Formats: sequence, C-alpha cells, structure tokens
Amino acid sequence: MTNKDEKWMKLALEIAEHGAGHVSPNPMVGCVIISAEGKKIGQGYHERYGQAHAEQNAVDDIADPDLLKNATVYVTLEPCAHQGNTPPCCEMLATLPIDRVVVAMEDPTPKVAGKGIEYLRNHDITVDVGVLEEEAKRLNEFFLYHQAFNRPFVTLKIAQTLDGYIAAPDGNSEWITGTQSRTLVHEWRSRYDAVMVGRNTALLDNPRLTVRHVEGRQPHRIVIDGPLDLPDDLNLFTDQYEENTIVLTHNEEKFTNEADPMLSILKSDYFRGKTLLIDEKEGHTDLKKSLIELGKLPLTSILVEGGQNLNSALLSEQLVDKVECFIAPKMLGGGTKSVLGVGINRMEEVMEFREVKWRQVGQDLLFTGYF
Amino acid sequence: MTNKDEKWMKLALEIAEHGAGHVSPNPMVGCVIISAEGKKIGQGYHERYGQAHAEQNAVDDIADPDLLKNATVYVTLEPCAHQGNTPPCCEMLATLPIDRVVVAMEDPTPKVAGKGIEYLRNHDITVDVGVLEEEAKRLNEFFLYHQAFNRPFVTLKIAQTLDGYIAAPDGNSEWITGTQSRTLVHEWRSRYDAVMVGRNTALLDNPRLTVRHVEGRQPHRIVIDGPLDLPDDLNLFTDQYEENTIVLTHNEEKFTNEADPMLSILKSDYFRGKTLLIDEKEGHTDLKKSLIELGKLPLTSILVEGGQNLNSALLSEQLVDKVECFIAPKMLGGGTKSVLGVGINRMEEVMEFREVKWRQVGQDLLFTGYF
Ligand SMILES: NC(=O)c1ccc[n+]([C@@H]2O[C@H](COP(=O)([O-])OP(=O)(O)OC[C@H]3O[C@@H](n4cnc5c(N)ncnc54)[C@H](OP(=O)(O)O)[C@@H]3O)[C@@H](O)[C@H]2O)c1
Ligand SMILES: NC(=O)c1ccc[n+]([C@@H]2O[C@H](COP(=O)([O-])OP(=O)(O)OC[C@H]3O[C@@H](n4cnc5c(N)ncnc54)[C@H](OP(=O)(O)O)[C@@H]3O)[C@@H](O)[C@H]2O)c1
Repeated sequence: MTNKDEKWMKLALEIAEHGAGHVSPNPMVGCVIISAEGKKIGQGYHERYGQAHAEQNAVDDIADPDLLKNATVYVTLEPCAHQGNTPPCCEMLATLPIDRVVVAMEDPTPKVAGKGIEYLRNHDITVDVGVLEEEAKRLNEFFLYHQAFNRPFVTLKIAQTLDGYIAAPDGNSEWITGTQSRTLVHEWRSRYDAVMVGRNTALLDNPRLTVRHVEGRQPHRIVIDGPLDLPDDLNLFTDQYEENTIVLTHNEEKFTNEADPMLSILKSDYFRGKTLLIDEKEGHTDLKKSLIELGKLPLTSILVEGGQNLNSALLSEQLVDKVECFIAPKMLGGGTKSVLGVGINRMEEVMEFREVKWRQVGQDLLFTGYF
Repeated sequence: MTNKDEKWMKLALEIAEHGAGHVSPNPMVGCVIISAEGKKIGQGYHERYGQAHAEQNAVDDIADPDLLKNATVYVTLEPCAHQGNTPPCCEMLATLPIDRVVVAMEDPTPKVAGKGIEYLRNHDITVDVGVLEEEAKRLNEFFLYHQAFNRPFVTLKIAQTLDGYIAAPDGNSEWITGTQSRTLVHEWRSRYDAVMVGRNTALLDNPRLTVRHVEGRQPHRIVIDGPLDLPDDLNLFTDQYEENTIVLTHNEEKFTNEADPMLSILKSDYFRGKTLLIDEKEGHTDLKKSLIELGKLPLTSILVEGGQNLNSALLSEQLVDKVECFIAPKMLGGGTKSVLGVGINRMEEVMEFREVKWRQVGQDLLFTGYF
C-alpha cells in the first residue's frame, strides 16, 4: 500500500459519494483508472440504481483504449461477480489488458464475498485489498448495516435548545436551529432512503419532510400511526410526493377495511409508499418489527425526526445506531424534552457514544455519535 | 495606535491575568515599560489586593533607571489618581523621565475616571487611550460589572448530558463530565470570588466546592439555606475552609437566635464567611437582594454550580450574566433537568445569547454565552 494508492483511492471514494441517495439499496461505488505512466485516464461511479456500475463507467470514460495497457484500477468496493441488472464487473475487468486492481474493501453480499477478487486473481491480475478500508466502510455504512442486519440503519436527528427542549411549552418548535442546520437536514433527507416521524409530530407540526433547501432526491416518508386515524389532509398525504409516504399501523381492523396496503415489495429504487400492518406492542406499533419490515422493502437507512415519544421508544429499545443532535445557543427552560423516559435509573447505565464529533454549523453546534 | 502598541499591550494583558483570583475587588492590571530604543526594560502586575500596583512593580523591575529616558509605559488600565493602600500611580509616573503612556481603557471608578490620564497630560506626558480596549474590558469583566451595578457578575455553570440532565433519576450526578472539564471548573473556582449552590445540592451532594485539581486560591462558598437548617456536618461547615462559607437565610427567628452573623464588612481580600439574613420572596431567599448584599461585601463575581431550582430561579429573574455549559457525550433520558420552569411559554420568548463560543474540552463540549 503506497501513498499513491491512497491518493487515488481517496479520489475514487469522493467520486463514489456522488451516488448518495440514488443507488440504494446498492452501495455507492467509485472507480479511477491510472495508466502505466501514472496518469489518470478514466473515472466513474455508480450513478443510479439499476444502471451501469462504477467500473464500467470508468472504462467508458477512457479516451484511448491503448492507455489501458498495464493500467491500475482503483475501486472502492470489490467488483461484483454476479449477473444482476448489469454483467459481472470482474469478468469485464478481466478482459482488459490491466495489471492490477486495488480494492478498498470486500463486498459482504453473499453473491460476491471474495468471488470477484478471486476471479481477477485467477485471471492473472494482481489484486490488493484494504486501501482506505475504514473510509470505504463509513461511506457505505447504510448498505453494510442493511447487509449485516436486514434492517435499515437508524439515525436519530434532534434539534434542541441548550437545555434539551425540542418545542416550547405551547408546542411550537419553529425554529429552534438556524438556517444552516436546517439546510444540512435537507441534505441528509436526500441521502437517507426514508425520513420517519411519530403520529403526534405529524399531527401537531404537519411537516412536509421533503428536500427543499438543496437540490436532491426526495426520500420516502414514514409516519407511525398506530390507530390509523391521522387526518387525510396532512401534507404527507396530499402534496406532490404523497406516493412516497409509508404509513405503519397496528390497527388490523382499520387496515383490512380501509387501508391501501403496500401491494408488492419492489426491488427498484422507487417503490411507492402505502400502508404496512405491524404487530402491536404495549399499545403502540412495534418498532423493531417495523424496522424489519422496512428493511425488506428494502430500505437501508432511516432518518428519524422525532418527536419525544418516538425518540425515547427507539432509544429504550436500542434501535438507534447514530445520533445527530443540533444544539441551538438558546434556552427555553421548559417545553418538550428531546428524550424522556428510556428506563435508565443510575449513572452507571448512562448511554455512551463512540466516535463522538462536535462541529459548529452556523450558530448551532452539531453532535454526532454512534452507539 | 501601531502594531507595536498592540504587541506590548497584549503582553501587559497577559501579565495582568496572573493576578486572577488574588486582587479582587480590585481589577487585574499589567504594565510593560519599553525603552526609547524599543526594548522591554520592565514589567509587572498587580499581584495581590492591598499590595503594589502594576506600574510600581514594572518600574521596580527596571535594572538601570537611565533606561527610563523617553521610555513608553503600557498599562492595561488608567493609572490611579487617588491615595489608597498605595500612593497614586499617576503621580509616581509623572516623576519619571518617560515620554508616553499607553492605556488600554479608562478606569470607571469614580475616584479615577479620567483623572489619572488628565494628571499625566498636565505633566507633559503623551497619553494614548484605547489600545486593545475590548480585550481589557473582557479581562476585567467582573470588576467592571461590579463597578457598574454594585452586584457580583454571575456565571451559571452547568454540567449536563446531551439531553440536558444534570443528575440521574436516582439523584446521582457523579460524574457526568470528564476530568478535563472538572479541572477547568476548579480553575474557575480559583478565579471567581465565590461559588454558590442551593440547599438541596448542599444536602444531596455534600459538595466541597474547593480548588483541588489545580493550584489556586480557595473561593468563598455561598449556600442558600432559606430555613437555616442544613446539618452542621456538611463539608461546607466542617472542612479546613469552613470560615470561607457564607450562608444566606430568610429565617429571621433562627438567624437572630442561632446564627453567627457576618459582623462587619471587611475591605480585605479575605473576609470570613458567616450568615447573612436576606428578605424572603415567595417562600424562598430573595435572590436579587442576596446578590446586592453579596456585592457589598464586596464580592465581584459568583460561579453558580446549581442545582436545577437555583439555576431556574436565577434565570427567570434574569440574574445570570454568563452561562458556561458543559455537555457530555452521553444520554440519560431522564433525571434532573439542568433548567426547568423559567416562565417561558412561546418560542418568541426564548432566551438567546451574545458572544456564543463552543469549544471541546476532552470528550465534552463547552458552551459559553452572555446574556
Ligand atoms: N425540534 C425537533 O427536532 C422536533 C422534531 C419532531 C417533533 N418535535 C415536537 O415533538 C412533539 C411531538 O412528540 P410526541 O412525543 O408527542 O409524539 P411522537 O413522537 O410524534 O409520536 C409518538 C410515536 O411513537 C410511537 N411509539 C412506538 N412505540 C412507542 C412507545 N413505546 N411509547 C410511546 N410511543 C411509541 C407511537 O406509535 P403509535 O402511533 O403506534 O402509538 C407514535 O406514533 C411536538 O411538539 C413536535 O413539535 C420536535
Ligand atoms: N451536574 C451538575 O452540574 C449539578 C450541579 C449541582 C446540583 N446538581 C444536582 O441538582 C439537584 C439539586 O437541585 P434542586 O433543584 O433540587 O435544588 P437546589 O437548586 O440545590 O436548591 C434550590 C435553592 O434555590 C433557592 N431558590 C431561590 N429562589 C427560588 C425559587 N423561586 N424557586 C426555587 N428555589 C429557589 C432555594 O432557596 P431556599 O433555600 O430559600 O428555599 C434553594 O436554596 C441534585 O440532584 C444535584 O445532584 C447537579
């Protein structure tokens, strides 16, 4: 592993990220091809679910095929070994006069899992694995989590005052954080497969949960509505993205009689939202089972945008993987707490985080931490 | 005002700060003397209440008095014009063969208030005022506040989890923040004239409120004990610094019969703590009147270390000037809130801060803001 390998892999990772929000449930992949003389001759990324893979796009980017002689291919994920919407990348690469393939990480998908690397090695191509592996794993944390656990990766987003309130005593929460923070949330919405809220939030705030402050793909919108009686005229059910909305309910009777159920689970990047029936748990929609069902759609990532009860229930059931908490330089001294009641009694049981980051966003502070 | 002026004034401000905690109720002052050739020939600061002023210390620091010819004196506060424990500095400076005095800011003390500067000018010394004035005001924010309002400057220190809790549901608060944060609090204790807690905190946590993690002067310790019935065996009343403890009560009967009242208000940097009788307000010790009495002692600065009720009462009465809030990367989801009930109902009434700063201290985040 050389400095050059890291340099090109870093570029491949940066390119890969352009696919964010568009390739799910596939991973983001980037590819850079370097000639025997050490010049970049082609680059590409997986742009959209169902379309060409990064390797093919990088090869197509090359002006003169002769440049491929003894070239090195940098790719952020092991080239695929299975026929999907596109032919296997390892076979395509093996037909080229290249010398070496550098791979950031193995693809854990059972259909690949080392077979792509093996195929290349069997065809006399040197394969080096593990360059910027950590970064590659972070880039595809949603995909990898979904592969491993068959559930979406869950990020809890909180926007609170310094003293931990997400709404004033009168219930109003507009606006606690500044415009830069809110813009960042819109960017996240365009990268997560779905955004989720609880029924009280849907009812009280009537949120749109769309991407408006930035350009980007609209996410699915999930609302938990145990009794299945949220009014029809909410933004989530009436705006131009209404078909993106997924309702989770545990009211079997109403579901059977009235709901428009999710008919089939489509393996496309754009299935349409409908209603899913989930088991009840202690009077509420079972959250763990909800996530398992959502994982089957498949959704690989969910950004939870509150409120207090949903936040707290997800935390107490240990269903949150990451917390993104905006703290505004303000105090309310009362109102709705960001989290209340997760069953902790003693300091020894406190929830701690890994990989803690604090960064300023406008006037606000953003905390990021993993469980 | 030149770059050189700023350079030397910056040094004088740094030197001044060494007096922190030792000169109150006086201001911190630093002085640097530069020869006609532009070399530093002397420096000094006001080291301790009642002892020599910065200017005298800087002059005493000079090896060869001939160097003073046409020298420039940089001093962070207008030289005093009144006879105190020491003779007026402006008169002392006027006897020297110096050319120029550069002053960061006027001294607002009525006895000085421009008279020191006038005296020097009348004795043919050029005086330039206002070099690094903002920094000089920040350095002496306690002194200046006390001069202006006759009350101590009040900083509210909070140590909370991400979700805004200062104690677990079982009441335990050890330890929310990390060692670096706690060390910083000890440093603050050595710089503030006094540390203050409410009676429940005194009772439940039995805190010492002393300086232990760093070297430094021990602060006065103020405990509000409306009913005047805290047990005698608390650390505040029994440890080696017990004479530093000041009790505020509104129980007139008990005060008259039992208390050891504060007999006289001493103008030293080390008066001893006793009990003060304060008016009652809605069943509690009147906080505004408490601060006025404490200002007379004189105390120029108080670091409030909780708990929830004291924090909230001070905030609702707008008696807090600065908030220092440590946020630990942890969640409790329940327990004692840092602040609860300050009378705010709508988002429009939210408490906002000036001069907001966020900085990382170990794993924790420290918010600093002024009201
Ligand atoms: N500043 C911000 O970032 C922000 C964001 C969002 C909301 N808010 C504020 O938060 C408030 C609404 O929050 P909320 O707490 O009233 O309601 P909520 O969190 O919106 O709704 C509770 C949801 O959690 C579900 N749930 C699942 N398991 C649960 C359990 N064990 N216990 C409780 N609920 C469970 C409920 O399901 P069932 O339907 O099956 O019962 C319900 O859909 C509003 O004031 C809103 O303005 C602020
Ligand atoms: N993590 C931390 O930074 C931290 C720091 C300190 C404390 N704590 C925790 O905080 C808890 C104790 O807090 P607490 O809220 O119970 O009590 P507290 O704040 O310690 O005591 C309340 C004090 O406020 C005074 N006060 C004045 N005006 C008031 C008003 N209008 N309303 C209410 N009180 C008024 C009371 O005076 P009177 O005596 O005249 O009634 C009383 O002395 C403990 O669990 C402790 O562990 C945590």
